[in-house]
Amino acid sequence: MSKKICLTGIKPTGIPHLGNYLGAMRPAINLANSGEYDGYFFIADYHSLTSVYDAKKLNEDIYNVAASWLACGLDPKKVTLYKQSDIPEILELNWILSCFCNKGLMNRAHAYKAKVQANVENKKDEDQGVNIGLFSYPVLMASDILFLNSDIVPVGPDQLQHLEIARDLVNAFNHHYGEILKEPKAIENETILIPGLDGRKMSKSYDNTIPLFSTEKKFKKLINKITTDSLPPEASKDPSDSTIFDLFCLFSTEQEQKDLSEWYKRGIGWGEAKAELFKVANREIAPMREKYDHLMANKSEIDQLLVEGAKKVRPMAQKNLQKIKKVIGVSNV
Amino acid sequence: MSKKICLTGIKPTGIPHLGNYLGAMRPAINLANSGEYDGYFFIADYHSLTSVYDAKKLNEDIYNVAASWLACGLDPKKVTLYKQSDIPEILELNWILSCFCNKGLMNRAHAYKAKVQANVENKKDEDQGVNIGLFSYPVLMASDILFLNSDIVPVGPDQLQHLEIARDLVNAFNHHYGEILKEPKAIENETILIPGLDGRKMSKSYDNTIPLFSTEKKFKKLINKITTDSLPPEASKDPSDSTIFDLFCLFSTEQEQKDLSEWYKRGIGWGEAKAELFKVANREIAPMREKYDHLMANKSEIDQLLVEGAKKVRPMAQKNLQKIKKVIGVSNV
Repeated sequence: MSKKICLTGIKPTGIPHLGNYLGAMRPAINLANSGEYDGYFFIADYHSLTSVYDAKKLNEDIYNVAASWLACGLDPKKVTLYKQSDIPEILELNWILSCFCNKGLMNRAHAYKAKVQANVENKKDEDQGVNIGLFSYPVLMASDILFLNSDIVPVGPDQLQHLEIARDLVNAFNHHYGEILKEPKAIENETILIPGLDGRKMSKSYDNTIPLFSTEKKFKKLINKITTDSLPPEASKDPSDSTIFDLFCLFSTEQEQKDLSEWYKRGIGWGEAKAELFKVANREIAPMREKYDHLMANKSEIDQLLVEGAKKVRPMAQKNLQKIKKVIGVSNV
Repeated sequence: MSKKICLTGIKPTGIPHLGNYLGAMRPAINLANSGEYDGYFFIADYHSLTSVYDAKKLNEDIYNVAASWLACGLDPKKVTLYKQSDIPEILELNWILSCFCNKGLMNRAHAYKAKVQANVENKKDEDQGVNIGLFSYPVLMASDILFLNSDIVPVGPDQLQHLEIARDLVNAFNHHYGEILKEPKAIENETILIPGLDGRKMSKSYDNTIPLFSTEKKFKKLINKITTDSLPPEASKDPSDSTIFDLFCLFSTEQEQKDLSEWYKRGIGWGEAKAELFKVANREIAPMREKYDHLMANKSEIDQLLVEGAKKVRPMAQKNLQKIKKVIGVSNV
């Protein structure tokens, strides 16, 4: 029996930060490379178009995100990496599914509702700044998943609703035409809180991020900016209440964690602690940074991988779409 | 200089009636065959999916509509006939344009507003029975038009808003990326009121239609059902107040109209008048009926024409879409 298909979509939104890497990318890559599933990763460039009208930025971000995932260890020999906009069948299915999606489902989608609420609070028209792409993107997400007959979709808690919508659309469609579309299953990603420079959750909206890829010098400089208290070096410190220690644990062996923990208790200077963090983090990131820089300087290698990915995915897409077009009656082939 | 592109979309909705033929199809075919424009006709099968979930019916209606237009004289050597669902680029453009379509535009679309009003009047949820395809179909219509860089779109008065929306989307898109999409121009079809069996406008909703294609016998029988007053045969009659005479004029020469007009004034039996109408109408329709029956019995001929149409249109579609994908930043090719 063939392996189950596991699908992950990645939105091109600039260079990821350490929080993205540790919280989402590294676990996803480990799962993908484990060979437990037949892994598919796609760059969701058409989703970006709901908000990014800067073609240069969008184009650069597509390369950024592809280079980042590849640099972080996504193995294109083990998983299939492709670009959403290379698979026209997804957009065709998007229209088909939109005909089976009650408008009420989209009225109740979280992202749209949040936007409406913000507009109302700011005394604007409730649909101000909402385009049809933004309003109906959960249908495109469902198409991303369903065109491939995906079995498993790892999601964050904020994406559970999208999977519910996808399943609703499967049921609405299959109700009319029989068991054609496959109901995907969500596996909810473990939520790992990655602290940022100020100790709060690392997030662009808090302006407390450490970009995953910059120069080694900048990386070191940012680590040195992590907020600490003003305890003197010789004072004993609590590793369980330290952003530095939390981040250190995400890059180190158990033995290293034990050693640093003891040093904390004995008394460590914050500069020393930061140097220890830099050492283990850079040990993991340095080769990735090198690969990232190489790919960004040789974008044709990325192009080539995406072409190969599309070549693998399109025949599957065509076959599935053809079946769908036949059951709805628009094709006899 | 090449000719302007003139685009007409035809929705597959069963066998057309005499009102469709005389009011819309015959004028459109005359314009198309005139060679004044580079004519493109497409079967809008994906539009039907917003309401038709009966695959057999949709499939049969696609053939019905293709056979009808061909039987009525659409010359595939002079115009290009294709099926919307054979051109995936249209659906891709549909997503792209949806990202440039303010939701407010769709909130204000006539068909959606009418649906909401009906729901409110029936004390239902205002979006009851509205799917996202139905809500956003003007975006798909814009894609139908814009993917081909159409110059001219003949429309009925109820479709003028769709052309306005298409132009709005052209402007929204071009505002960001330069002069890429071409603004289409509507030419409003002359409105010809075709009376039905009861003298009111011929319309399915009045149940007063005469199907364009049935057997000759049925056709004659229906003409004999046209409502008349109870004047005796010998009484003088007013041709300007006669459904029979109105229909007769749409199939006859000036001389024939003059002759029948005089007969009316002299006194004509309604049975005789109906026989005269049948004679001229059947003169025009009999060869069309034969062609229609032939095509419906040989659907592979229709398939073949649609394949040829798609073969001509797809390279144009691909070229235009590629240009669009490049300017928005999702492709470098």
